[in-house]
Formats: sequence, C-alpha cells, structure tokens
Amino acid sequence: MKTLRDIGEDALVERLVRLVPTHPDPAAGPGDDCAVIDQHPQSPTLLLLKTDALVEHVHFLPNTPPRAVGWKAIARVVSDFAAMGGHPECFLVTLALPPETAVSWVEDLYRGIGDCLGKFSAVLAGGETSSVPAGSAAVISIAATGSVRREHLVLRSTAAPGEILFVTGRLGGSLLGKHLDFTPRIQETDWLVSHCKPTAMMDLSDGLAKDLPRLAAASGCGFRLDRAALPLTPGCTPAQALGDGEDFEILFAIPVDRVEELLDAWHDVFPDLLLARIGELVETAASESLSGGWDHFAPR
Amino acid sequence: MKTLRDIGEDALVERLVRLVPTHPDPAAGPGDDCAVIDQHPQSPTLLLLKTDALVEHVHFLPNTPPRAVGWKAIARVVSDFAAMGGHPECFLVTLALPPETAVSWVEDLYRGIGDCLGKFSAVLAGGETSSVPAGSAAVISIAATGSVRREHLVLRSTAAPGEILFVTGRLGGSLLGKHLDFTPRIQETDWLVSHCKPTAMMDLSDGLAKDLPRLAAASGCGFRLDRAALPLTPGCTPAQALGDGEDFEILFAIPVDRVEELLDAWHDVFPDLLLARIGELVETAASESLSGGWDHFAPR
Repeated sequence: MKTLRDIGEDALVERLVRLVPTHPDPAAGPGDDCAVIDQHPQSPTLLLLKTDALVEHVHFLPNTPPRAVGWKAIARVVSDFAAMGGHPECFLVTLALPPETAVSWVEDLYRGIGDCLGKFSAVLAGGETSSVPAGSAAVISIAATGSVRREHLVLRSTAAPGEILFVTGRLGGSLLGKHLDFTPRIQETDWLVSHCKPTAMMDLSDGLAKDLPRLAAASGCGFRLDRAALPLTPGCTPAQALGDGEDFEILFAIPVDRVEELLDAWHDVFPDLLLARIGELVETAASESLSGGWDHFAPR
Repeated sequence: MKTLRDIGEDALVERLVRLVPTHPDPAAGPGDDCAVIDQHPQSPTLLLLKTDALVEHVHFLPNTPPRAVGWKAIARVVSDFAAMGGHPECFLVTLALPPETAVSWVEDLYRGIGDCLGKFSAVLAGGETSSVPAGSAAVISIAATGSVRREHLVLRSTAAPGEILFVTGRLGGSLLGKHLDFTPRIQETDWLVSHCKPTAMMDLSDGLAKDLPRLAAASGCGFRLDRAALPLTPGCTPAQALGDGEDFEILFAIPVDRVEELLDAWHDVFPDLLLARIGELVETAASESLSGGWDHFAPR
C-alpha cells in the first residue's frame, strides 16, 4: 500500500487536482500562493482566495504561547496575499480542538489572531469549531479572501529565462523564533508592485530549496542559484537557509535591465532590509536542481 | 482551569468573537450559515463565505468509505449556501492527515469531493496539505465562496413573532446513513426564494433542538414547537428528531397569511418531499426552551 510518506506533498497535490472540476481560468485554480478570481470585469480589483493550516506538534508545540500561534496563523496567510501583490480582507477560522483544551488557551489564540487582523486591516467573517478526540493534535485552519488591483497582480508563472532572482531578508533558522513573530512583507510587496513590478513572485514557506524550483517550474524555466550570495541568518549554514522553511521572505524575479534601478531605490526606501541577488532564471535544460526543504509527508 | 467541555460551543464562539476585529456590517460577520459580503454595490449578487470541517471519529470513522466522506465534506457547505438562498462557487480544501495515510484513501476522498462539486457546478480553487502526528485524527477543512442574488438573500435574523415554522423532509437517525449521502436542498431553496421567500432560513446541522433556538434568537424571537407535528424518520423518536443532528434539512419561517399558498404550490412542485408545519415564532418572553442537540464540546 502506497502512503503519503512514499509520494510526498507535491506529487499528492498533482494527483488530487486531476480528480476534481477546476475553474476554466488556471489563475482561479491551485498552483500559486492564492487563487485569483475575476468576479466583475468592471471591477478594478480581483478576488484572492487562500487557505492554510497550523497543526500542533508540526507548526507549533503544546507549550508555544497561544497568542503567538494566533499571530502566526493569520500572518502566514497575509504573506500569501502579499506574494500576489494584494491585501487581506475577510478571514474564516476553523478550530479542531480536544474538549479538554483550556478556554484561556483558545482566548489567547484569538487575541493573537485579533492582533494580526488589526495590524493588516482585516476582519473575522466567520468560523467553525469542532472537537477532535482526546490526544489528537489541535488543528487551526484559516481561509481568507483578499484583493489585488488588476495592474498589481503578480503570479509565479510569468517570469522568463535570463531574469534575475532576489530575496528579501535573511534565510534559515526560523525555528529559533522568527516563525512565531514575523511580519509579513506586505509593505515591501506594495512598494515593489507599484515601483518595480516583479515578473514573478512568491513567499518562502517551505524553504528556498522547495520554493525556488516551484517558481521556476511554474514559469517554465530552470534556475541557477549563487550559493555564496545566500543571505544567511547569523549562525545558520547554507543548508539551513535552503531547507529550514518558514522564512516568510519574498522571492521574486525582475528583468536584468531593471536590477540597478531596483537596488538604488530599495536602499533608499528600505535601508534596513537586506535585498539579496541570489541567482537567475535559465532555460529548463540548463537548470540546477536542489534537494531539501519542507515536505509534510517525507520521512524524518 | 475551565475547559471547552465546561462552557460548550456556543458560549465559546460568543467569547472569541469579542476578541477580534469584525466587519462593520453584521451580515459580513459570524452568526449566520454564511458571511455575506457586499463587494460591489453595482453587482446584482453578494459574495457568500463559509468554512466547515470534518474530523475523523467525530464526523466519519476510519472505515467510512472515503468517497462518501468527500461527498459529505462538500455537501455540508453547499447546504449552508442553500440556506442563504445562494449557490456554491469556489472551494478550498485543507487536509491534515497522518503520513501513513494510504494515497488511495486520499484519492477516493477527492473523487467524492469531485462528485459533489460537479453536481452543484462548483470548482476547486485551491487547498493546503499538512501532516498530523501519527495517531492523530484526520481533519478535512473546507472553505468556499458562493453567491446569492441580492433579492434572494435570506438571513436567520429577519423573522418576526407570529410567523410559521416549516421544515423539509424528515428528522432524526442521520447516522443510519443519511449523513453520508444526503443531497443538499438547493433545488428547494431556489424555488422558495423565487416563489415564496422565507423571512428567515437555516439548514439543520446540529439538530432542531440546537438550531431552532438559534434561528429564533437571531430574529429576536421565542418559539413554540408542535412536537406532534415533528416529521420523524421512520423508527426514530421525537428526541432523536430533535437531537441527532446532521439532518441537513431546511428550517424556515413565513408569515401566516402565506401558509396556504405555500402548501398548495409545494405539493405541486415537490410532491415527494414532506414539508411539515412544526410551530411558530413568538415573543421572547413566551418562548419554550429545548435541550439536546449536538455540542462538540459537551460531555458524552
């Protein structure tokens, strides 16, 4: 019997998507940070949809402060909206918790949810609560709508060979703390889509080793990575920068003739945030490959 | 230490909602079958948002056919859109599964999801997969958008004392099989909102004993229930009809002067589906009370 551990997350998703009806517009289906729905041709904005989940023992521990878990649950989704050039709007929160969970734990979780919703001008629109059997892991599932101005939308699939790859911030070592208190890079993506619009963009949640090949493949490209240019979190190795995951930094591509302009402007606007040129997109046949990064179903 | 078991589901939700920012329009927040978002004043439709979850050992068992679990996961949410007078559109599916889950189980789950999406002209727009620790219950969380024509929207909160209460179909005994293969009453709600629009409506998921007081309270009313008129599933007691839950029938109110017209037309259009007059809404002070119904966190 083949199990999820045998085939891994990406192969699973590929198999499943073939079994169900999807939208005729591929941007409205799976495969990017969010689904993009063109609801009203006369509207200046597009609807974004996203779902995500936090699982106890996987994304947080029983002794993680619940307020930090709540912040993280919302911030991860805000980061996905940022990665499309958009903004979050309405959130639905589904809690699957054992009946013996302390009310104060859930209240603190919601305080963290409220902190992050408030910070990014989003609201709670609804939710659902269910019990799980005693001893089962708690699951917090978040779904949200967002919006993006038509001219600001950036997909993963629209870059081309020869374009230059950048990442914001530093990579690796997220479990030392950043995974719980990061601030989604929405200020930075707002500026990017208005001033130096990337040709493709995504947020780094499963590690550059997993996510860079995804962006390249979505654009029908390969990639070359300049390992010496990886912006390492102090104390981290390149392997950690590639594989730890939960960086929530932004990976994007721009044409080579805009690099200088981007770097000049960036240092003026975000003097305190590193922007690292880490490689380039190439033809598929000339691609490097990377291993590592986070697969939920891989053996550990 | 107070736990979820001590306070129950409704009290929990009430506490949590106070801790987070919500939309200025109450219809866009928690409290009804779906959240209702007025995105474009010039649009003839409103956006509906809904989330729901199925948990192993709670909503299905390890030996439940996975294709039936997939159908149920989507059908429950379709039923919520029907209860607002609307239709489903885009679905996001979040799976939290142990790595030892068989790939064939997940594929059959998705075949059931596809069956139900196809039946109701909805599509998969995205999803997320996460592992849960070995031994933890599987959780399937569904989020979806829907739409409703402005003039067809029915809330829970807009009925008045004196109005008459109806339910479709028969109540009780859902665990004998109906909870896995029910067809959401969307054909019936479509007809109702076009031909004899209810003043308030909801679907019955937690049992009439839990759901009728919710509808009455949302409308600022009490209720009187005619127990002798309860449409019992053959072999079920009134207590089961009130408390079993997962009926996925429709509860609605209409003014007394439209009852005769409704019943005449209903028998022509849906000759095979029972429509039972089960009581009326009254002033709050004159209300009965009901106990029972499904609370996820209640001791069993």
